[in-house]
Amino acid sequence: MLIRNLTPQECQQVMARSVFGRLGCARDNQPYVVPIYFAYEADRLYGFTTVGRKIEWMRANPKVCVEVDEVLNHFQWMSVIVTGRYQELPNTREHRSERQHALTALGNHMLWWQTALAAQQASTSHESPEPLFYSIHVDSMTGLRAFPDAVESKTGLADQTRLT
Amino acid sequence: MLIRNLTPQECQQVMARSVFGRLGCARDNQPYVVPIYFAYEADRLYGFTTVGRKIEWMRANPKVCVEVDEVLNHFQWMSVIVTGRYQELPNTREHRSERQHALTALGNHMLWWQTALAAQQASTSHESPEPLFYSIHVDSMTGLRAFPDAVESKTGLADQTRLT
Repeated sequence: MLIRNLTPQECQQVMARSVFGRLGCARDNQPYVVPIYFAYEADRLYGFTTVGRKIEWMRANPKVCVEVDEVLNHFQWMSVIVTGRYQELPNTREHRSERQHALTALGNHMLWWQTALAAQQASTSHESPEPLFYSIHVDSMTGLRAFPDAVESKTGLADQTRLT
Repeated sequence: MLIRNLTPQECQQVMARSVFGRLGCARDNQPYVVPIYFAYEADRLYGFTTVGRKIEWMRANPKVCVEVDEVLNHFQWMSVIVTGRYQELPNTREHRSERQHALTALGNHMLWWQTALAAQQASTSHESPEPLFYSIHVDSMTGLRAFPDAVESKTGLADQTRLT
């Protein structure tokens, strides 16, 4: 197996075709990682959720990390790590334009998120009924790619070795 | 879609059958998330890696979070979030027993990790040649499970909706 760094352009390509990743936030240096859906655009990510622990933590400390990976097997995978800053997009005049932009960017994925949101609201009456939109401003983005070496490719080892 | 909390036993079952997840660590309240392979056992996880940013950060701040998920589609998924503390298992008399235990627990997965390790060492001569073993002591573990409601099951909507 060979490992190399992704170029900035390759990182962007991985992010652009991804809708699912893991978001890390931190409070008092305790990290907290959750799965998220998102839409990526140039220098930012858009997402939406309900109020909960991760939102409380990101309001207190906007430093975040988003990890995305594509794992075919142990020999063939890519991962991209984004660090950035959380910004909430409340339903106010100041944020109207970007909030609308986030809605458009999130596009079709909204259907499932709305379903999930409705279900969550139905089961937890203390949740805010309002969906919460946010953006993450990208500060840095790095990535790695692993691929089989000549021997692994020739012997078919990489093809036989599924992750799960 | 309905969402419910996993029981502690269900969380343990998800962790026990998982070998792949995302590890979050933090420095100066900046979170950092990377994919990891691990072996889970009762109240701890074992892993191994080479020296790098995550190890430097966890040495400085042992508070970590491990996230594991199983996503079939938008309507059917499970996620488990573990918070815990990082402990290094150096090759010393004090840690010999637990280090050997980690090796056994990691078992078959070692083959791929060793391959990856060798490749990384070949391409980055400044890396330590010694693999680094660690354990994560589990402090808390919570989980969520989403499943289709009666209408989604009946209409087959959940079956048609793949994540990617």
